[in-house]
Amino acid sequence: MVATQVPVLETLRHASNARVDAMLSALFEARPATAPRLEAAMRHGLLVGGKRLRPLLVYLAGRALGADDEALDAPAAAIELIHAYSLIHDDLPAMDDDDLRRGQPTVHIAYDEATAILAGDALQTLAFEVLASTPHPRLGSLVRTLATASGRDGMVAGQALDLDAVGGHPEVDALAHMHAHKTGALIEAAVRLGGLIAVAETDPRLEALSRYARTIGLAFQIHDDVLDVTGDTATLGKASGADAAREKPTYPSLLGLEGAQRKARTLIDEAIAALAPLGENAAPLADLAHYMIKRDH
Amino acid sequence: MVATQVPVLETLRHASNARVDAMLSALFEARPATAPRLEAAMRHGLLVGGKRLRPLLVYLAGRALGADDEALDAPAAAIELIHAYSLIHDDLPAMDDDDLRRGQPTVHIAYDEATAILAGDALQTLAFEVLASTPHPRLGSLVRTLATASGRDGMVAGQALDLDAVGGHPEVDALAHMHAHKTGALIEAAVRLGGLIAVAETDPRLEALSRYARTIGLAFQIHDDVLDVTGDTATLGKASGADAAREKPTYPSLLGLEGAQRKARTLIDEAIAALAPLGENAAPLADLAHYMIKRDH
Repeated sequence: MVATQVPVLETLRHASNARVDAMLSALFEARPATAPRLEAAMRHGLLVGGKRLRPLLVYLAGRALGADDEALDAPAAAIELIHAYSLIHDDLPAMDDDDLRRGQPTVHIAYDEATAILAGDALQTLAFEVLASTPHPRLGSLVRTLATASGRDGMVAGQALDLDAVGGHPEVDALAHMHAHKTGALIEAAVRLGGLIAVAETDPRLEALSRYARTIGLAFQIHDDVLDVTGDTATLGKASGADAAREKPTYPSLLGLEGAQRKARTLIDEAIAALAPLGENAAPLADLAHYMIKRDH
Repeated sequence: MVATQVPVLETLRHASNARVDAMLSALFEARPATAPRLEAAMRHGLLVGGKRLRPLLVYLAGRALGADDEALDAPAAAIELIHAYSLIHDDLPAMDDDDLRRGQPTVHIAYDEATAILAGDALQTLAFEVLASTPHPRLGSLVRTLATASGRDGMVAGQALDLDAVGGHPEVDALAHMHAHKTGALIEAAVRLGGLIAVAETDPRLEALSRYARTIGLAFQIHDDVLDVTGDTATLGKASGADAAREKPTYPSLLGLEGAQRKARTLIDEAIAALAPLGENAAPLADLAHYMIKRDH
């Protein structure tokens, strides 16, 4: 599969971001807030910046299997809500203790720690509310897919494993295991949610999408580690060199910078191979795989 | 409706608790934990003590409308998972900063703050996973009911309003507004979830259950405030006098101890009146209303 249409991908990205941002903004419009300061903190965590990679994956995977954009809006918004909640909690003083995110003060800096905890909590709840807001014959599968990827066997488990690893010296396999949960699970859930809108849980193309997602998920994380070494704070929107400063094990620290970059490229090749069963409809997903390790922030 | 069968209620409570505890314990058995320390913290927050009031309400409300116990297990477990997550986060240093809960160290004391944040997060996720684990034609309504009651228009909003109120002097109406969200919303969700297992969202008996729940929910909270004044730490399983110590407005501080107790009794009368459309099947719910303001912890 040839996949070199980066301008096309950029157009798709902008359209996807506009779509999901409109949906996310609408969640806070034309309604009285029960707790206005809480909602302001939720908006800050959700609407300020963000690459919106996961919603894009929902749209691209769903379209590749024939879903309509309208039916993909709810899962696209839901997965971004989960991602946003996780970042707010990850940045807390008791966790990564980050003051800056997407070039802006983190939620506990802009508001306070208690409000940041609650804003994250409420964004998680809202994810499930939004996902269940549209009737769908496979709603049970959709909810379970999002929950399994987010919780104790997915993203939260990865965050817990990451905490345990600070100052430790895990092998490459343990690092991959942690990342597969911390970031990989939600990236995989994004393509599966998109796919599940169109096809039944038993459709083998869902497994092809999962394989694609697992490889780009890890490549994405390796590239994040690489950027932490090679990027600058202004471009990243967060402090560069942060991993080294807190003695976190990273791919560059374990494999060297070139080794890490080589591993990321190999994973992208595997991701594109995994898309074969989806045919030409998956071309934008292949383009996205290439973009994963080209981005500078 | 006559409602004096407290021994019958005790039998129902024990059966309900045994049922939901078995279901909650099973969530942690016969599976490898991805992050063992995280799961240990989740178990600590979920399985150590607890009155299991909300699951009991799911069972009693569901049975009153004709639901089978088996179909009520998932919502009963889900609502207790939400309650347990909220307590873990409420106890955090940045929130109420409590060291003791149900006579045991709170999760951030027994483990650490980061693990407590993540354990709460994962318990919330698990609530939605469990709720969606059983097929049900009204799954969308069930998920939306739980989410709406838990999030920015329900429990989390109440916690945010409560934070704002520390050291302030709200009127009785503002206090009721806060409690209606912080504890009332989830109590109302419990009876609605039970009811929704049996009947459609448009059934007027759901609204009767909601009225019942709103009044016992507030009475429950008033009685909590009363116990904080009249109870002792050993019986409560948490520090008595804690509200006064942090200058939190309470019903006894606003209405006097006797005024608060009188208000709780009036609410219980209203709760029992609300049950009229449900007939004799609602007798255990009436018993429970009486119990609400008799418990000593």
